[in-house]
Amino acid sequence: MRKRTGKQTVRIESHPYIISARSVVGPKEGEGPLHEYFDEILKDDKNGQKSFEKAESSFMYKAITGAINEAGLKNDDINYLLAGDLLNQTISSNYTARDLEIPYFGLYGACSTMAESLSLASILIDGGFADYVVAATSSHFSSAERQYRFPLEYGSQKAECTQRTVTASGAMVLASQSNIEDKSRVYPYISYITTGKVKDYGILDSANMGAAMAPAAVDTMYNHFRDTGRNPDYYDVILTGDLGNFGRDITTKLIKEYGYDVSNVYNDCGSMIFNDDEQNTKCGGSGCGCSASVACGYLYKKMIDGEITKALLISTGALMSPTATYQGETVPGIAHAVAIEI
Amino acid sequence: MRKRTGKQTVRIESHPYIISARSVVGPKEGEGPLHEYFDEILKDDKNGQKSFEKAESSFMYKAITGAINEAGLKNDDINYLLAGDLLNQTISSNYTARDLEIPYFGLYGACSTMAESLSLASILIDGGFADYVVAATSSHFSSAERQYRFPLEYGSQKAECTQRTVTASGAMVLASQSNIEDKSRVYPYISYITTGKVKDYGILDSANMGAAMAPAAVDTMYNHFRDTGRNPDYYDVILTGDLGNFGRDITTKLIKEYGYDVSNVYNDCGSMIFNDDEQNTKCGGSGCGCSASVACGYLYKKMIDGEITKALLISTGALMSPTATYQGETVPGIAHAVAIEI
Repeated sequence: MRKRTGKQTVRIESHPYIISARSVVGPKEGEGPLHEYFDEILKDDKNGQKSFEKAESSFMYKAITGAINEAGLKNDDINYLLAGDLLNQTISSNYTARDLEIPYFGLYGACSTMAESLSLASILIDGGFADYVVAATSSHFSSAERQYRFPLEYGSQKAECTQRTVTASGAMVLASQSNIEDKSRVYPYISYITTGKVKDYGILDSANMGAAMAPAAVDTMYNHFRDTGRNPDYYDVILTGDLGNFGRDITTKLIKEYGYDVSNVYNDCGSMIFNDDEQNTKCGGSGCGCSASVACGYLYKKMIDGEITKALLISTGALMSPTATYQGETVPGIAHAVAIEI
Repeated sequence: MRKRTGKQTVRIESHPYIISARSVVGPKEGEGPLHEYFDEILKDDKNGQKSFEKAESSFMYKAITGAINEAGLKNDDINYLLAGDLLNQTISSNYTARDLEIPYFGLYGACSTMAESLSLASILIDGGFADYVVAATSSHFSSAERQYRFPLEYGSQKAECTQRTVTASGAMVLASQSNIEDKSRVYPYISYITTGKVKDYGILDSANMGAAMAPAAVDTMYNHFRDTGRNPDYYDVILTGDLGNFGRDITTKLIKEYGYDVSNVYNDCGSMIFNDDEQNTKCGGSGCGCSASVACGYLYKKMIDGEITKALLISTGALMSPTATYQGETVPGIAHAVAIEI
């Protein structure tokens, strides 16, 4: 087909613009090294709600409506909402979508959801199916702990390879270029998407998600380079997320074995969002909201300011569940890549 | 945009063909009124696996690889797999995708997943992003009971409005017409998709999913008619799934209030799959596998045989989780419609 290049990559010919991006993060994320880039830092990680789950929906709603407002649009202008999250039955996204009245495709890609939703949003716009699409995701430390690990009240200890689920939501509004009235405005656009396969290297320890997801990140990165003919140095920055410090080191080494040296341009959203020593966050951040808030906060602002002009965002997801882990299953990973340029 | 018609509908101009469909169902579904239409009826609802969850993955794998084989293709020919299911973190789909080596977009639409995956598959092909796409979903009575209600061992009683989660998987392979070498072959194709919004009419009883989902089905149905200018009588059959008997009756009445009489052509996949009196299935079937197996089994075969030439499939999903229900949340619903013609 005319838009495919290589095995896993699609060229997004019409370069859909990301006309707005909004990041809302929790108090702890707001104390981290990226605090100046976030649009809103919550004072209370319950955001005035009665439960962590309701809080997560409430700040995802803030991120989405914030992005729509920033774009000068109304909910009614948006043709599709693409969203997902970590909670069972993706309730954060579902209950947020209930309050928005926008046609909704629910996704589940675990922490790869930001790049997954951006990929499908690009396709909807490039294919002529939509004028405006919202791509969004969220996660919450406390709702994730309760569901995947232990309720906070247990005070359970963490392994050294553990990452902390980021309390955050990120949302972007994508638009076809023909819809931008002010032709002098320049926005970041999506040029390529590389869709990942599920990779499983037999990691049994669900606390070691960086190691479980690294092979998926490497596979998608390798396929992106091969399919597009680009090299790591084409990009100002390559951001995986959320592999954390341990997964980032594995990725750097593994991709070198495929002949690509990414060390000059590569970082991981999970490694960037916390100061692990000061904030006691072990191996960095994780969760759908991690790559979402780093992409919508740090990356988008750096691109609008012209400090970054070519970026490859590779959101990574660990696709296990507690039930699968109890049944002795290993942790499969997936990674989707989106090339963003300005 | 050129492909949009009305608020929620897209015209799929290139008419992507559904070149194969495969349905695999459990023993109880195989004893129901549609038994002759299913491609494979399992003798054992564990399918030789150690858990219900692993069984669900194993028969989803059967449905997907069966559909790919039937189309005369290999896994490597498929550009995208679009799949989702009911289990926490959609593990049935994730672990199936792990064994397939196909680029994978994970979805969560609860029981609306079959129409959601068909919608996005049509978009990928019509937009020129893919040659071949697989759309698939699954559910399992016993894995769903354990997760949403009570383990089977408790022997809990059922309310009269309860539906039985269908043990089944369905998968379809979609292809662009330009990829069909034998031009004399005729297949069902997708002509329109109408994407649903989340609707919530305040149903608090999560055992009464038909009532919770009916308003979403009605909303999507109404928008489909309005956007396309079609009337119910355009279709030989309109199938919702899985509203069950109670939800079907509500839908028939509600859509009449919008001026559309569907009574001549309308049925519900959940009402069709069991003989409720003989099989003690209360209000009919539910689960992602319900509309999937009825669409891939009954509907696809009736269309290939020419008995049905115009169908509207409206898969419906209840988007709650047990956690949301415990926290006092109501049950939101969503419905996606796909027009299939031959």
